[in-house]
This record gives sequence, C-alpha cells and structure tokens, in this order.
Amino acid sequence: MSSKETQHRIKQSAITLFNKRGTGRVSTNLIAEYSDISKGNLYYHFKNKQEIIQAIHADIVTEMNAGWYKDEQQPTVTHMAEMFLRQLDLIWRYRFLYREMITLARNDSVLREHMRQNREKRIEAVIEFFEKLVDSNVLNMPRSKQSLRYLVIMTWIFSDNWLNFIELRGRDEDNVIQMGYDFIIEMLYPYLTDSARQEIHSSYSVLQANENVSPRMTG
Amino acid sequence: MSSKETQHRIKQSAITLFNKRGTGRVSTNLIAEYSDISKGNLYYHFKNKQEIIQAIHADIVTEMNAGWYKDEQQPTVTHMAEMFLRQLDLIWRYRFLYREMITLARNDSVLREHMRQNREKRIEAVIEFFEKLVDSNVLNMPRSKQSLRYLVIMTWIFSDNWLNFIELRGRDEDNVIQMGYDFIIEMLYPYLTDSARQEIHSSYSVLQANENVSPRMTG
Repeated sequence: MSSKETQHRIKQSAITLFNKRGTGRVSTNLIAEYSDISKGNLYYHFKNKQEIIQAIHADIVTEMNAGWYKDEQQPTVTHMAEMFLRQLDLIWRYRFLYREMITLARNDSVLREHMRQNREKRIEAVIEFFEKLVDSNVLNMPRSKQSLRYLVIMTWIFSDNWLNFIELRGRDEDNVIQMGYDFIIEMLYPYLTDSARQEIHSSYSVLQANENVSPRMTG
Repeated sequence: MSSKETQHRIKQSAITLFNKRGTGRVSTNLIAEYSDISKGNLYYHFKNKQEIIQAIHADIVTEMNAGWYKDEQQPTVTHMAEMFLRQLDLIWRYRFLYREMITLARNDSVLREHMRQNREKRIEAVIEFFEKLVDSNVLNMPRSKQSLRYLVIMTWIFSDNWLNFIELRGRDEDNVIQMGYDFIIEMLYPYLTDSARQEIHSSYSVLQANENVSPRMTG
C-alpha cells in the first residue's frame, strides 16, 4: 500500500470506530487492529489519536471546498433542499465529530482553530446564498439584513444539531432528513414569496430521491 | 457532615471540575480530593463517575420540577424572556452536560432514559405555553398546530446549543443571553401580534436585570 492508501485506511477505520463507540472509547491500538496494520505502521503516519481526528477534519474541509461553493449561483428553494441534504449527509457520515464537537474542540486547540475557520467561512457562504434568495425574489427580506443573518445562523445551529436531537429522542424515525427539512421550511415560510411556496413541494423530491442515504438512528 | 451534605459537596466539586475539564478528564479520585474527603468516603456515596452524573442530572430535574411549571399561566412575551433566561442560566451552570450530552447519553442507558423523559416533558410544557400565547393573542397561529410545534422545537434546539455555538465561535461576547434572545424574537417575529411587538422592548429588561449571571465564555 502507498502511504496515502494506508492513511486513508486508518482514517476510514477511525471514522467507523469513532461513530460507533465515541472517540473516548477507541484507542490507536484498536484503530491499527481494525485497519489490519501494525501499531508501528500507524504511528509512522499519525503520532496519536488527535492527529487522526485532525486529518479527518481536514478531509471534511477538502470535501466542502470541492463541492460546497457557487451555491449563490443557484438561488432556488430546490437548491436549498440540496444544500440541507448535503449538510445532513456529511454530518451523518462524520457524526462522531458533531456529537462530540465541543469536547474535541476544547481538548485540541489546533482542531478548534481549524473548525472555527471552516465554520465561519461556511456560515458566511450560506448567508450569501440567502441574500441571493432575496435578490432573486425567492425570499422576502426580513426586517433587516441583520435579521436575515440571524435566521440563517438559526438554520445552521438547527442543522448541526438535528441528528443529535433525534438521537436523544430515541425513537426510530424513517425520514429524519425530510423531517428536518420540514423545520427549515417552517422557519422560512413567512418570508417565502408566493412563487417560492409553489416550489416547496417539488423541492422535497430532492430528499426523496436520496432516501437510501438517509440516516437511520441505529449507527 | 451529614450524608446529604457530603453528597452535595461531591456533586458541587464534580460540576466545577466537569465544567472546567470535561467529564473524560476528571477521575473520581480528583473529585474526592477537590471535595476534601477520602476516596473511601466518596465510594460510600457513589460507586463511580456515572452515578455522580446521574445524581447531578436528578438535581436538574428536581430544579425544573420545582420552578419550571405553570408557565402557561403567564402567556406573555416578558415571561417568555424569563423562561429563556432560566434555561440559559441552567445550561451555563451545568454546561458540561450540554457540551457532552450525546456522549454521556450513549455511554449510560439509565442517564439516557432519564434525560429523554425529562426533555420530552419539558418540550411539551413549552408547546403548551406557546399554545396559550396563541389563545391570549400574543402570537398569531402559524399555518397549523404542527407548525407551532415545529417552531417551538426549533427554539428548543437553538437554546440548548446556543452557548456551544458561541463557544465554538471563540469570540469574547458580553451579552450572550441577550443575543440568544434576539434570535428567538427574530424567529417568532412574523407571528407576534402588534401588541406583543410593543412588549418586546420591555421584555429585554428581564435579561438586562440579570446581566451579572450572564455567562462569559471563559469558564
């Protein structure tokens, strides 16, 4: 295996184990074992668990930078549904990070700073998308630009924590992503223009088409 | 010291240490030391860290049951501000629990079930309060009763995670509770009746009067 392949395998093992048990209950030894490599080989690539988590976070940032841009060029309700699906799908794949975000950030100042920078950038991008929704007559301007920022940040906080909320509720839900999208639509509804409201129904088809990637609260 | 006093002291030490370092980095030995009692004495009261966390959670439930009821008898914007302040103040005092909620719930099925029951009860109480806001002409009914539920749950998820969000953002903020309340008002604004909108300004005085208990993101 190349160095890159080995690192990829280690990160994939770590993600699987972290999602299943939480980072606190997974040792680097276990990650090596699960990756079918020696401890020495793992330490050659990553000094400790923290470095593995940092590398996983860097992959998230890379994925976002590769695909999460130019949103403001598609200012439609349907694209908003796609953005929500994209975010929830990522949160589900890296759910350990969203479950333990504060603890991980508190325990590692390097990770914390990377998270902070990435989140700030992403939130600004979503705000820009929403400003374009206003420009494109999809959304009526709330009381002020500040109000719009607040609404966007609220949807952000909601999206980040929706899967956690569902997990704590402990019921088995079939369509967690669609249900989460219901909340976003509900919050924005007063501001959606008539033509945008016409589009709501068809925007759900984005989520339905992706039912197979919907998280089930069993992982 | 009576048994109750000793337990109280242990729980207070644990809360202080958990808030500061996170539960994963605090041992029962450290809690005993910080409480100025012997390890044996601690183990006499609590078998392990899990039991201490369960006891702390039970205190939270007791506090809520003692003071967080009859809200529906005061269906005003000002009382809503009081409820928000009350919730944020509690979250700040027990911030370790809100930072690590998912991990703690995943690692302890007893705690998870207690959390679940309490949260379900509280959310229903807040929904009842909001239904009374509608009955009392403070809030216009959204599209449906279901919509109202969704808006309330959204404010709940926001409130639970607001301090975490601010902490991750890493800026020093002076008036975190007031700023959080701005978001709640922003989300509800389209539904507030004219008379309720008149009350917004004075409802902030509740939060200003409690500036001294406002969390600073330094703990």
